[in-house]
Amino acid sequence: MKVVCIGSGNVATHFSNAFKANGAELMQVWSKNQNHAAELAKATGAMPISDLKKIDPTADLYLIAVKDDAIPEVVEALNAVQGIVAHTSGATDINVFAESGMNFGVLYPLQTFSKQKALDFKNVPLCIEAKDQETLDALKSIARMLSPLVYEVNSEKRRILHLSAVFACNFVNHLYALSNDILAKNDLDFEILRPLIMETAEKVQDAFPADVQTGPAIRNDEQTIVKHKELLKDMPELKDIYETLSKSIKKTH
Amino acid sequence: MKVVCIGSGNVATHFSNAFKANGAELMQVWSKNQNHAAELAKATGAMPISDLKKIDPTADLYLIAVKDDAIPEVVEALNAVQGIVAHTSGATDINVFAESGMNFGVLYPLQTFSKQKALDFKNVPLCIEAKDQETLDALKSIARMLSPLVYEVNSEKRRILHLSAVFACNFVNHLYALSNDILAKNDLDFEILRPLIMETAEKVQDAFPADVQTGPAIRNDEQTIVKHKELLKDMPELKDIYETLSKSIKKTH
Repeated sequence: MKVVCIGSGNVATHFSNAFKANGAELMQVWSKNQNHAAELAKATGAMPISDLKKIDPTADLYLIAVKDDAIPEVVEALNAVQGIVAHTSGATDINVFAESGMNFGVLYPLQTFSKQKALDFKNVPLCIEAKDQETLDALKSIARMLSPLVYEVNSEKRRILHLSAVFACNFVNHLYALSNDILAKNDLDFEILRPLIMETAEKVQDAFPADVQTGPAIRNDEQTIVKHKELLKDMPELKDIYETLSKSIKKTH
Repeated sequence: MKVVCIGSGNVATHFSNAFKANGAELMQVWSKNQNHAAELAKATGAMPISDLKKIDPTADLYLIAVKDDAIPEVVEALNAVQGIVAHTSGATDINVFAESGMNFGVLYPLQTFSKQKALDFKNVPLCIEAKDQETLDALKSIARMLSPLVYEVNSEKRRILHLSAVFACNFVNHLYALSNDILAKNDLDFEILRPLIMETAEKVQDAFPADVQTGPAIRNDEQTIVKHKELLKDMPELKDIYETLSKSIKKTH
């Protein structure tokens, strides 16, 4: 199993490490920035390149992990390869490959990656889609090498997953950031809130979130809501978010 | 160490079990509802009561774990006891005890409890406050019996913690619920999102949330934001929340 990794960001780094850990050979790492390519290439024993024309045509998998708007030019440059070419984007349709004669597909990891934090790839749901059944089967084998959590998801549903991940990850993290703002403004340490954050996530691992909702809004505890809004009177943006989300909780339940 | 537990809800249940597991004697469990009292009493070997006048005056600790607006009447009924009387409310000032001659304090758990889910009490931050230094020292020893995470927090800061917990727990859980709504509407299973939810919480255990923010809003990826709003066109409330939180992310960073 020979892999060429196009990209050197968080997604490229975690995929490359996972492929290497599972016995695949990393042939090349491409990045527009030669230094970035060299860094990831060194860690995985690959050859760093910064010219798409130098891509080795003999790999089994070409993994595209670049910014969404850079995908089309990569696709064009890869047109002659024989192996499977897969992008990793949640928001990009499989049609981005439509004009090509390649064996193409999608390998979308529904997870949040950061370079600083190690992550067990067994906890990365991989959503796959492919040009035809043969390519899909091949991509499924490759995905299962890396993670037991493999799902067949078409482009339309992948967009939905990507959107729901914005709520469950990006917006959630922003709420963590806002609670830290509230604490910092009052000389309180974020440390004290961390166990609650973990438990809140753990609670929905075996339950549906609507069934474990707690707090003043779901209890219709107007007295507490009024007190909280009073505490936020100097933070109008947070007060607005408090009102919007409290209203939404009351409405849903 | 003899404990009387006033209340039989989630907080009362988790505290009672933790006290019992750490060798304390549960003397009585009070609930307005005799069946609820009996249930928790049975699990902890305590005597169930539903009349506040029958409270044993010889306990070391009277833990008040009832709804906020029921605390004053409990305080009044306990006026003759000698042990420490502590409420567990985030939003209730220590002044609720001011008229009493008791040894009073607060033992506020900054955690989310549900009856269905077991929880290691070692992960429960306990915020304490007391009438005087002697009572505070005694309450600190009691708290440390249950958890290593003991913080001295006055009533003003406790209110702030309670407010920040609404953002980091109640609102976060509601965002989980909204992502599930998006998935369900499109025949996708919440299961696929659970690993992302765990990892998002784990990421801020060693980092500050503002430093690990990801997603289209922080990247100023207007193209994706427009597509997401289009996908939400039949869910105006979610579209509104999407816009409010995206705007807030862009503003903060």
